[in-house]
Amino acid sequence: MPPTSARVTAVDTYDIRFPTSRELDGSDAMNPDPDYSAAYVVLRTDAGDGHEGHGFTFTIGRGNEVQVAAIEALRGQLLGRPVDGLCADPGTLYRDLTGDSQLRWLGPEKGVMHMAIGAVVNAAWDLAAKRARKPLWRFLADAEPEWIVRQVDFRHLTDALTPEEALDLLRRGREGARARRGRLVERGYPAYTTSPGWLGYDDDKLTRLAARAVADGFRQIKLKVGADLEDDVRRCRLARAAVGPGVRLAVDANQRWEVDEAIRWTRALAGSGLYWIEEPTSPDDILGHAAIRRAVAPVKVATGEHAHNRIVFKQLLQAGAVDIVQLDAARVGGVNENLAVLLLAARFGVPVCPHAGGVGLCELVQHLAMFDYLAVSGTTEDRVIEYVDHLHDHFLDPVVIKDGHYTAPTAPGFSAAMRPESIARYTYPDGTYWATQDDKERTA
Amino acid sequence: MPPTSARVTAVDTYDIRFPTSRELDGSDAMNPDPDYSAAYVVLRTDAGDGHEGHGFTFTIGRGNEVQVAAIEALRGQLLGRPVDGLCADPGTLYRDLTGDSQLRWLGPEKGVMHMAIGAVVNAAWDLAAKRARKPLWRFLADAEPEWIVRQVDFRHLTDALTPEEALDLLRRGREGARARRGRLVERGYPAYTTSPGWLGYDDDKLTRLAARAVADGFRQIKLKVGADLEDDVRRCRLARAAVGPGVRLAVDANQRWEVDEAIRWTRALAGSGLYWIEEPTSPDDILGHAAIRRAVAPVKVATGEHAHNRIVFKQLLQAGAVDIVQLDAARVGGVNENLAVLLLAARFGVPVCPHAGGVGLCELVQHLAMFDYLAVSGTTEDRVIEYVDHLHDHFLDPVVIKDGHYTAPTAPGFSAAMRPESIARYTYPDGTYWATQDDKERTA
Repeated sequence: MPPTSARVTAVDTYDIRFPTSRELDGSDAMNPDPDYSAAYVVLRTDAGDGHEGHGFTFTIGRGNEVQVAAIEALRGQLLGRPVDGLCADPGTLYRDLTGDSQLRWLGPEKGVMHMAIGAVVNAAWDLAAKRARKPLWRFLADAEPEWIVRQVDFRHLTDALTPEEALDLLRRGREGARARRGRLVERGYPAYTTSPGWLGYDDDKLTRLAARAVADGFRQIKLKVGADLEDDVRRCRLARAAVGPGVRLAVDANQRWEVDEAIRWTRALAGSGLYWIEEPTSPDDILGHAAIRRAVAPVKVATGEHAHNRIVFKQLLQAGAVDIVQLDAARVGGVNENLAVLLLAARFGVPVCPHAGGVGLCELVQHLAMFDYLAVSGTTEDRVIEYVDHLHDHFLDPVVIKDGHYTAPTAPGFSAAMRPESIARYTYPDGTYWATQDDKERTA
Repeated sequence: MPPTSARVTAVDTYDIRFPTSRELDGSDAMNPDPDYSAAYVVLRTDAGDGHEGHGFTFTIGRGNEVQVAAIEALRGQLLGRPVDGLCADPGTLYRDLTGDSQLRWLGPEKGVMHMAIGAVVNAAWDLAAKRARKPLWRFLADAEPEWIVRQVDFRHLTDALTPEEALDLLRRGREGARARRGRLVERGYPAYTTSPGWLGYDDDKLTRLAARAVADGFRQIKLKVGADLEDDVRRCRLARAAVGPGVRLAVDANQRWEVDEAIRWTRALAGSGLYWIEEPTSPDDILGHAAIRRAVAPVKVATGEHAHNRIVFKQLLQAGAVDIVQLDAARVGGVNENLAVLLLAARFGVPVCPHAGGVGLCELVQHLAMFDYLAVSGTTEDRVIEYVDHLHDHFLDPVVIKDGHYTAPTAPGFSAAMRPESIARYTYPDGTYWATQDDKERTA
């Protein structure tokens, strides 16, 4: 692509909310009535090539307007930025935003402000991949290891991972990438499904959806647990009976328990042949997860969707607190910080199984997992991407699941763009959907 | 006070910013040019007694509007709340806010949303203490241990501290409180000063202010470090020469270092007789602090001003990562969560030396430290409250420092209320100060 003098000319934000609480889709022990939402951002340029960068933070309803305000606080850092430089090195944007000393006070590197940075950084990667005419997974996998290392902020990581070690991992990770790429394009990347297991579903629906998941080719399903032990024992048995012995059964407590409670509860469910227990306690409790992991083995401990930055992931790995790293595409500071997470996990030899679901998280994480397969870990063994069958129809390039696998995206970009008609309908509170609801039915 | 049917009728917010960056007051290795700011909230009622609840989040400039938006997202939870119930049990408000499942997604319990909760919870305590006609330290110290325990959320704490253990600590903590109260009122609570040590000050100003601090009765001063090792060695020597051998010298790196760098740097400064090294690395790095502490003893490790919730404090204590717990009045979820922090510290026998400075943080933390002295730890040994001589004149009930001690406040409330004329002048961007500045001199 010839050099241009194009710049970022607009940073448009949208408060988008879907009324998912009405169907109890997405209900779990901590989140009884989520309205899946997105604080959505579009970077526009004057390049004249028609490309925009799309990104978002996933939230579950109230407070989505705060997340939008946080993205808007970054506008001044984005407007006027040269597009060539932004796309050649998104890491500079990421460092400029996380390094802004005044904004840093609002975290640092956690919560609303950090997720806002993640949304705009991901939008920059979407733009960069589109301009390179590649899906993001290929854009990343084709990049030189030296360049990838420069995209990572090693601050507060070097006691676990140095730039030199990362470079070494990436150089070794590339070996055999061509053959793996052929397999990826042919077969896809393995998925597991959470769709049968929402806490608001009755036993019949659970059983029916669990059996259907196996028929659809999934080799792992996940159930939400943590509200009532007796119910959970019964639900796990029903699920095990429905899927048979060869399919992995994971459970997710969504942070509900104390440390000792997590150990007791997990042991009580283990008879159904649990594969992993996810988010057994506070996502901040590194030492707690380590204690739980020691006590519930061979059941594996999985966490990460609420781990707020690379320093938390570093410690989860250093402390031996996790068997499974569940990165989230929109919780941390975007692709750059997730590159750090993938490298940390590889350094410790722990598999990454991304968190997905929500709004558009499946669309995003597939790219990161596919990059991991091609250029970092080099394997899909014991690796699966979460899949939830909600809300994909609102995206221009929705995920395609075939026989329990994510199909490798072919459209350029990060698969982040939502359909204009969905944005118009679900923008809160003035979109056509919300404007026609009674006041009491609105989320805020 | 007779029961009333009064309710919360207004939640007014203000974006207040002071142009402190022009004097390099508050400059450190991570924050070169802060504009000390407050996202400020006032709870008004129809009780007709003239009492309002004031609270705020301290920020350092850009993004203060995001913090204000987060406080506004809580308005619906506050309006109409019965005042009697709110003041009799602020813990219910705290639990309702931290337990809102949709807002919880934006943390959980960290960053912008959690600090907003802290601001309104602190405002509720300000109102409660005013209505009881007591300064907050007395309001807390006079409360029954059982009631204090009910103000604490033990979720995700019970592997380190149970309600029963907390009750036991509080019952024992009361013994001798009457005598201590006499000493507190007579003598005050020991302070240390950070005023000499800002990184932007030259050697002459540092030496002059260090000597003056000792003349003013302080027995500990603190210097900012972490930008340049050679400079820091010289500055620590100058400070030690200025204060003499009997005064404690602490240094604060404001998160600047890697773990190994922190160890090397602290050892290089230790020759000047360091008392503590503060925030040597990422505030999220519990294991890193533990490694640093093991390596730099007998220099003590202090942290906490950016520890985002009680679960981080729990782990800092469990891991043996800190010698000094530096709670912050406005970083966590308000008084309720700080009660948990005080109790955790007492359980582990670690002294609390609150972080202060900023805007109004001295005004707030003095109440918490005085309560700790009267009813929890029962001692001021190895305990000091930070003091910085900035911006107190903007408060209606500013701290009073005498001979290196905080004087116990006598006015009812939490000392949180800012002068109306300061609010009018420094509201951003329309207050009289900012409206008359050139655009380029504004912070955002």
